[in-house]
Parts: sequence; structure tokens; C-alpha cells
Amino acid sequence: MPKISSKGRLMPASPIRKLVPYAEEAKKKGINVIHLNIGQPDIKTPKVALDAVRNHKIEVLAYSRTEGSDNYREKIANYYGMHDINVTAKDIIVTTGGSEALAFTMGSILDEGDEIIIPEPFYANYNGFATANGVKVIPIVSAIETNFALPPFSEFEKNITPKTKAILICNPGNPTGYLYNHDEIKQLVSLVKNHDLFLVADEVYREFAYDGKHHHSILKEEGIENNAIIVDSVSKRYSMCGARIGCIVSKNQEVIHTALKFAQARLSPPTLAQIASEAALDTPQSYFDDVITEYVSRRNLLVSELEKIDNIKIAKPSGAFYCVVQLPVKNSDDFAQWLLEHFNLDKETVMVAPAGGFYATEGLGINQIRIAYVLDKKQLVRAVKILKKGLQQYLAK
Amino acid sequence: MPKISSKGRLMPASPIRKLVPYAEEAKKKGINVIHLNIGQPDIKTPKVALDAVRNHKIEVLAYSRTEGSDNYREKIANYYGMHDINVTAKDIIVTTGGSEALAFTMGSILDEGDEIIIPEPFYANYNGFATANGVKVIPIVSAIETNFALPPFSEFEKNITPKTKAILICNPGNPTGYLYNHDEIKQLVSLVKNHDLFLVADEVYREFAYDGKHHHSILKEEGIENNAIIVDSVSKRYSMCGARIGCIVSKNQEVIHTALKFAQARLSPPTLAQIASEAALDTPQSYFDDVITEYVSRRNLLVSELEKIDNIKIAKPSGAFYCVVQLPVKNSDDFAQWLLEHFNLDKETVMVAPAGGFYATEGLGINQIRIAYVLDKKQLVRAVKILKKGLQQYLAK
Repeated sequence: MPKISSKGRLMPASPIRKLVPYAEEAKKKGINVIHLNIGQPDIKTPKVALDAVRNHKIEVLAYSRTEGSDNYREKIANYYGMHDINVTAKDIIVTTGGSEALAFTMGSILDEGDEIIIPEPFYANYNGFATANGVKVIPIVSAIETNFALPPFSEFEKNITPKTKAILICNPGNPTGYLYNHDEIKQLVSLVKNHDLFLVADEVYREFAYDGKHHHSILKEEGIENNAIIVDSVSKRYSMCGARIGCIVSKNQEVIHTALKFAQARLSPPTLAQIASEAALDTPQSYFDDVITEYVSRRNLLVSELEKIDNIKIAKPSGAFYCVVQLPVKNSDDFAQWLLEHFNLDKETVMVAPAGGFYATEGLGINQIRIAYVLDKKQLVRAVKILKKGLQQYLAK
Repeated sequence: MPKISSKGRLMPASPIRKLVPYAEEAKKKGINVIHLNIGQPDIKTPKVALDAVRNHKIEVLAYSRTEGSDNYREKIANYYGMHDINVTAKDIIVTTGGSEALAFTMGSILDEGDEIIIPEPFYANYNGFATANGVKVIPIVSAIETNFALPPFSEFEKNITPKTKAILICNPGNPTGYLYNHDEIKQLVSLVKNHDLFLVADEVYREFAYDGKHHHSILKEEGIENNAIIVDSVSKRYSMCGARIGCIVSKNQEVIHTALKFAQARLSPPTLAQIASEAALDTPQSYFDDVITEYVSRRNLLVSELEKIDNIKIAKPSGAFYCVVQLPVKNSDDFAQWLLEHFNLDKETVMVAPAGGFYATEGLGINQIRIAYVLDKKQLVRAVKILKKGLQQYLAK
């Protein structure tokens, strides 16, 4: 029997995946599982996007242009312009989700054995794309006590080696919900300028900035035009995760031309989803206002409910829709499994994402979980109540 | 300015891409360019697939399951069953086009420095995915004189090294149009059994088999259950290239579990396209009968028209919808560019794919072109007439 690749063996499985069979078992036993574990919002997709697909006049569902149509990319550039990010269509490659934008970016700037620095905890799939490219992730720990603010400048400097090619951030953060302030962005700018590194920013949660705080895009910073690469996606912005449309944005034309070659190999991004995504750009501002209002009130409610639980630490999120919580347990993998396998409150339980999978440093985050507040408020309150009761019973074991 | 990756520099650009600016220039001059260069069929997508999207009731365009829904995969397994390929849903991972199926397959079975044997000429993007994985393509030349039949067994044996991990075929072939007969498939079976290699078959043109010949899927062969991996796609089958839905099929569960980890990193294939693709499985047989009849008559017409041109060699295709032609020119890149830049017949010219890009061996195929007969017969006749006149004028220069 021929052997699979070493790379394939090293590829990390989704950290939530291990729990899926336990969730399915619970459901079979008639237990309702409230999902706090996945960033799939319940928010409706803008009607204008869905209608564009309903009303399509396609007779031959043909390839689109590899980098996305001129028209769509010009509209995307216009969207960035409204966010004071000054780019043109030629700085943009439309991709199959933010995922492909990440994959093409890593392929374009990193060789096997190269290092990429990422503040942890971070979006677990960064590990997957790094492994697929044979790239080493160098994590820099951020602390729950600071709500996962950017680690000190010195920690980055200490970890930069001749193999370091890039720093990757997610802003606002998944799983942290942390929104970097302008000073933090400027620190990163100075780091990549001093050390001639790429700065990759996953800004898919750009609009989700709360409490009057502003999102600071790396593409607004001067002097790093050739260092900065944005990874973006329509998934969260318009609650259309299933579209699988994103983009790479960079003023560095060598990066764009290189990423284009990766894009050519896969021919084109999905046509139907591009129709929806292009139409989504006409979503009225009121949609976003309503969504942000909803998320803020969910977050406030979630945090105030969580605060009723003893001996936990909460990283209060200022963006995105995730919240990392530190629990008085030894192992949140075990706790998350126990909630599904052995616990219910009136035939209901919750599924949470154990946070260990969001850390590259072995053993970190092992008493933390990530909660995605993508459910309505009634369900959120109920979920925290179940979590609280579950935790009491788990600790009393 | 930070440097892009070596891998990024090595990535091949699309061989047709170089010609695109010349085609655009020609169009600006009011010249109609007939595209023989791209495998984008003019055939209508089945109504049942397009209607499924038109009639969607989606309110939240959510992620689908990473490997595709159970329901869709069971239907795909049923489709294979109708082709005497005995697989179940657990042997299938739905991918974003055949492209992603290829990328995941290569990632799952090949490490940097490993070798994959591919009969040439072959689909140019195999090179792209190999380069992205740091994998070395070992080409084995097939000859236009045999219509690109499988090269002799001894040629494969000669090129197998300790680094060889797989043999990759495209059946029927792009760009060759060659359909492997059962003896050829059995030769491949014996090669991968003897040398413990993977056999990857790109069978996206399965239905396009002509002249009463049958397609022989590698998954129908006994004794290579753990070696065989099929790469498939809805693109050509239902003329829905823009959907970007394909799949990996293998009885080797280690391969499937490994590919699933690559799939998890990118979350899910596009949801709207899966709705269309699932519905496409209900396409009536009469659709395929009509399409095959149409392609056969196009091929017959194309070949008979081409035969009127002096001093050319034609590889008569028995499948797919491509035809490789050897021309009495030194360099088909130059000729293809010249057709766009300096030639027109009553304000019309043709764009062809120079075949050099389909060979890994430097210098091979440099006097060949690939013609995709995806246009109606009137246009095909006109295109060959233009090609003939163009060739005469080019040779008389």
C-alpha cells in the first residue's frame, strides 16, 4: 500500500472535529445541542445578494476571469476607498474565500522551512495552510489578562531570525475578538520595515469594530506599500460564509503577479458566488448598522451572563464575534467532550470550541474555550446558563 | 522590499496568458477573435441545475459540510454506480473544482522533492500544482503519430526511482483527446502494483468517449483499491465550468482522511455551486446523448477540414473535445501571436493554444497547437479556414 505524504500526516485536523461524533450522539439521544463552537452567523444574508442569484440569466455557467472580472474588482476597490484604503482593481485578486487568499499568499511569499510569526491564540487554519506549505509558525503569546493585546515589540524582535519572512495578524481577531489600536499597528509597521518582512493582515472582520473604536487597516499605513498584504472575505461581512469568495489585496505588484500564477492553476473562483458577492456590495449601510447593534448587544449580554460564573476569566471582545473564556478546569477538551457526552440541562447542552487548537505552543490555552456569539440573545442566555450548570457539575465530579 | 518565494518564482504562468494582450489588441482594432484556445464549451448547462439555483430558498448562505453533504455524496456514489464504479459516500470528498481535487491529492501523497510520472503532453496546470507542492514532474513522451497512446511500459519502468510516488493520467486526455483502452489501463495497474505507487486518474471527461469506445475507469480495476485515486469535476460533464465543483474519489481511507484535513483548512466548497451540481445529477440521459452526438460531429468536421491543410499532422481524438495538431512552423508560440497581431481574414482571426505549455520536456510540442472544438460547426469551419489562410501567409513571410 503506497504511503501518504509526511506533510499529509502533519496536517492538523480541525480541533472541533474531534467533538463532532459526541455532538451527533447527543442529538441521537434527543438532546438539543446549542452550538457556540462555530463562526457561522445566524444573521440573514443581504437580500440584494441572494436576489442576484435568484434572478440570474445564465445559460452556460462559464469560467470567470482568473483574478475576478474587472467590473467586480473595480467595485471592490471602490468599497476599500470608502474605508479610506486607496487601492485599484490591479491590486486585487478575487479568491475562493479568505481561505484561498491565505493559501495563495503563503505560497507566494514563503518557501518550505521559512518562518511566519503569528500572535497566538490565532485562527486554527493558519496552522493548516502553513503545514501545507512546509512553513514553520512562530507563535508569540498574547495574554487573556490584556484581552489579547499585541505582545510587546521586544517579543517579536526576539523571535525574528534569517528565516522569518512575514508577520501575520488577524484584526479584529478570531478567536480573541481583539481590535488592534493604531499604536499597535504602527509597532507592526516599524517591525516589518526594520526587518524587511511581509505584513499579512486577515481583515475579514473589518466592519465588526465596537464601542466607537476604529479599525486600522494595514493598507492605510504609509511606507509599507511593498510589505502589506490584506486577506479578505465576504463570508462574515455579508453573512455569506457559503459563497466562498474572498480576495488578496496588495500594492506590491510582484506579490499580485505571483499570486495570480497560483490562481491561474485553479482557473477561476466560483461564478455564482461572484454574482452574489458583487451584488452584496450594494448592501445598504442600514444593514451593517443593524448587524453591529445586534452583535454589540449580544456581546454585552454574553459578557454580563458569563460574569455570573465563578472563577473564570473573560477577554472582553472589542470586535468580531468571538470571546475567549478561561475556565477553572484542567482540560477544556475534556470538559467540552463531557458537556456533550454526559451532561444536559432539561435535554439541552452546549458545544464549545476548546481553545488549545488556537495556540501553536503546546499546552497553552488548554483551560480556555472560544464562544462564538452568533446566536440570538435568548439562546445565548440559555447557553451560558447550561455552561454554568455544566461547569458546576463537572467540577463537583 | 521583501522577496517573494522561490516557489512563487518557479510557478508557471498560464501558457495562453501571454497571448491575451494580443487578443485584446486585435479586438480593439475591430477584429473578431474566434477562440479555439480554451476548453470552455458553448453547450448549455442543464436547465435542472440552473433552475435549482434560481429557485433557492436560502436566507443565510451558510458553510456547507467540509467534505460535501451526505446527501450529495450519496448521490455522487450513485452516479458512479451507474458507471459500474463501486464506491460509497465515505470514499468521496467534494472539492472546489477538479483543480482543488488535484491540489489536495498532490498534497496528500507527495512531499517536496518527490516525483510524479505523467505522460506528456498533459494538462498544463498539473505543472502548477506540482510546483506549488515542490514536486518534480517526470514526463514520459507520447507521440502524435500514435494519437498519443500510452507510452511503452518500459519507458515508465525506466523512469521509476525511489522518489517516484505516483503516476498521473488524464483519461480521456486534455490536450490529446486520447482515450486509453483497457490494455493500457491494465499496464498502468501492473506498474503501480509492482512498484507500490499511487495511480491518479483525472477522469473529468469520462462521458466524452466516441466511436463506440468505452471509458475504462481505474476504479473498476481489481487489486489497486489502495493505489487508485480519481480526480473528477462537474465542469465539462454538465458544461458548468464556473460552478467550481469536483471531487476526490478513493477506496484508500488513509488518502481520504488526509485529503479531508486539507479540506478542513479551507472550510467548505461553495454552497450555491453544490446546489446546482447536486441538481445536475438529475440531468436526463438525452442531454448527454445530444452533447456526444454534437461533439462527434464537430470532431469529424474539424478533422476533415484540418485534413485540407498541407503538411500538418492531426492526432485524431477519440474522447474529450481537444485536438492536437502539428504544424509546419518552427514555433507555434510565435505563430499563435502572429495570428492575433498581424493577421486577419475579413476582420476575423483565431486564437489557438500553443502546445509547448502542455509538455514538461523543453522544446517538445513547440510546433504543435491544441484546438478545443467547443464552438458550433459553422464557426469551426470558419476558424479552420482562417487558420489555413493564416498558415499560408505566415509560411510565405
